[in-house]
Amino acid sequence: MQKIRVDNFSISIDGFGAGQAQTLDNPIGRNGMDLHQWFFPTDTFQQMVAGRPGEKGIDNDFASKGLEKAGACIMGRNMFGPVRGDWPDDKWRGWWGENPPFHCPVFVLTNHARAPIEMEGGTTFHFVTDGIHAALDRAKQAANGRDIRVCGGVSTIRQYLKEALIDQMHIVITSAILGTGEHLFNGIDLLKLGYKCVQVTPSGKVMHTIIVKDQ
Amino acid sequence: MQKIRVDNFSISIDGFGAGQAQTLDNPIGRNGMDLHQWFFPTDTFQQMVAGRPGEKGIDNDFASKGLEKAGACIMGRNMFGPVRGDWPDDKWRGWWGENPPFHCPVFVLTNHARAPIEMEGGTTFHFVTDGIHAALDRAKQAANGRDIRVCGGVSTIRQYLKEALIDQMHIVITSAILGTGEHLFNGIDLLKLGYKCVQVTPSGKVMHTIIVKDQ
Repeated sequence: MQKIRVDNFSISIDGFGAGQAQTLDNPIGRNGMDLHQWFFPTDTFQQMVAGRPGEKGIDNDFASKGLEKAGACIMGRNMFGPVRGDWPDDKWRGWWGENPPFHCPVFVLTNHARAPIEMEGGTTFHFVTDGIHAALDRAKQAANGRDIRVCGGVSTIRQYLKEALIDQMHIVITSAILGTGEHLFNGIDLLKLGYKCVQVTPSGKVMHTIIVKDQ
Repeated sequence: MQKIRVDNFSISIDGFGAGQAQTLDNPIGRNGMDLHQWFFPTDTFQQMVAGRPGEKGIDNDFASKGLEKAGACIMGRNMFGPVRGDWPDDKWRGWWGENPPFHCPVFVLTNHARAPIEMEGGTTFHFVTDGIHAALDRAKQAANGRDIRVCGGVSTIRQYLKEALIDQMHIVITSAILGTGEHLFNGIDLLKLGYKCVQVTPSGKVMHTIIVKDQ
């Protein structure tokens, strides 16, 4: 069955999924990189960005599974880039270079229309200006029965979560403390929405949790 | 050096340290018991409540250390009991029977004065009506150089935390999801207050974290 899922999403001990003040140099906000220290040394990440081996084990198993090709992805505009407001030009093509790691259609939620961008490796960025439901409909159609990954950021996940549209979440609880930023679950009653934790796998560095919606 | 510390304090994936609607039958609020499922099977807890052996290992090591006799304890009135408002009589003597597991002076924060209660095993409950600083001063004096444990609940820990009065916290991140309740860190900027996580020890069931204040 086609699932709407979140993978490899890291939060701090105090519950933040991103820091404050995103900039070009600091795409996950202040101290946001601390959330991903478990991810960077993994073989999956090292092979992807540097073509060299990295660490194997539990963290790598999750990292790898969380990057498996999905049928389609959805992300918020701030995850796509640091540009705010109208697009000044077509220069910004995402953080990931010419061959982004998605390899499928990616639907970017935005209020500012823009023509699709076809990248290398099967990724095409589509800009959706008519809301989360429209984006999900388009993603479902494009995914052709495969899973749809809601990549982030925090605000995008929260919007889908509040309507219980996410079937499964892999949330990584890290040892980072952010103090401020974007809180993933604040004000969202996961129990009432029907979510429960069905798996906890500690790795030594972090705790991997799988949260699913009751069917 | 004498430390002000929190031990064995469990939170849910969504950050709650207690559920909603505390009652006599449900002292940690709705689903609050889910937070302590790692604790109940430990040898420390089983020996304490049933006089029989329980599970050894990482969880037990933390449980045991977190129950070592302190010099003094501080707790909120709701942790002491379900009675609200004026004390109707002297019947309520805590949740823990005649020999509570503290074995030291315990300072209970309340707006309603009451004479001290001397229990078996060295525990005396003192009721402090002039605020958290007065309670801490009295605890320091009573502790005679030993550590002071802030037992809880959430509201009490938050009050001391907001003023950076806690030196060390052992926070247990569990697989529970509560949805609603009392959030431990919400609105508290731990980084700004000078806290950092210095240890993460996963047990298979939970993630034990040690958070300390920079000196």
